[in-house]
Amino acid sequence: MKAEHINPFIIAVTTVFKQALDLTLKRGEISLKDSAQPSLDLSALLSLTGKASGLVVLSMDREVAMHAAEVLLGEKINSVNQDVIDLTGELGNMVAGKAKSLLAEYEMNLGLPSVITGKNHSISFPSNVQPITIPFSTDMGEVHIDAGLAETP
Amino acid sequence: MKAEHINPFIIAVTTVFKQALDLTLKRGEISLKDSAQPSLDLSALLSLTGKASGLVVLSMDREVAMHAAEVLLGEKINSVNQDVIDLTGELGNMVAGKAKSLLAEYEMNLGLPSVITGKNHSISFPSNVQPITIPFSTDMGEVHIDAGLAETP
Repeated sequence: MKAEHINPFIIAVTTVFKQALDLTLKRGEISLKDSAQPSLDLSALLSLTGKASGLVVLSMDREVAMHAAEVLLGEKINSVNQDVIDLTGELGNMVAGKAKSLLAEYEMNLGLPSVITGKNHSISFPSNVQPITIPFSTDMGEVHIDAGLAETP
Repeated sequence: MKAEHINPFIIAVTTVFKQALDLTLKRGEISLKDSAQPSLDLSALLSLTGKASGLVVLSMDREVAMHAAEVLLGEKINSVNQDVIDLTGELGNMVAGKAKSLLAEYEMNLGLPSVITGKNHSISFPSNVQPITIPFSTDMGEVHIDAGLAETP
């Protein structure tokens, strides 16, 4: 993953959380993603294909996902129900869509979002894509983005 | 998911397991995938984009994944290590690639594979794509494919 590809993902996450949820994210230290590193409670996984191929995982604590659903639906949410899962996928879709628009030179298409749940699930990227992890914190809990991008040969 | 889209996924899984691993799969009953239904131990997740968009999850018991790695690497495997994870992704890639070639009319591109591990992880598809689950059994354990395809509007 090239250094100039990292910023679009930072901008995408902070912009979407601010605009859609009025949440200000505090960024932590960027690191290389270790494939065995478990994700947070819910992960939205998105695929990008075009002149580059990429994977984007937006992972968050259940409290953050539930808060996001409360904001977006305008009602009290007490558990990780289907609405919370769908809206986590939609947030991931917005983040990957924003990153794609910031990386317009690769003319990438965005795939369908999937959402992964389950305590201590881990998501491994292919070994030819060295993904990075960018951690963020909110008052409600943690949010991570894992992103890997490889130019198509 | 249209009925005529199901067969390509059945053919893809059985062909890849036979050709790559010399494993004959016994097919069980096809059902609609319930989003809360947990996957098996390791899941390879692939995205397809084009005139249709789709998600494909190839999920298997750890014993099947370890056996596949033993066949492909020609050495004894004692745990779910990075090789097993990489080869599970590669099997998913082969299955989705074969399905894509059988659905050539949609001119789809295949995204990068990711592999999800973790006990009782669940993978939810977007609500506009009703995925199906096709279970298969082998002497080593279970293999499932979950597939959902929606024509791009």
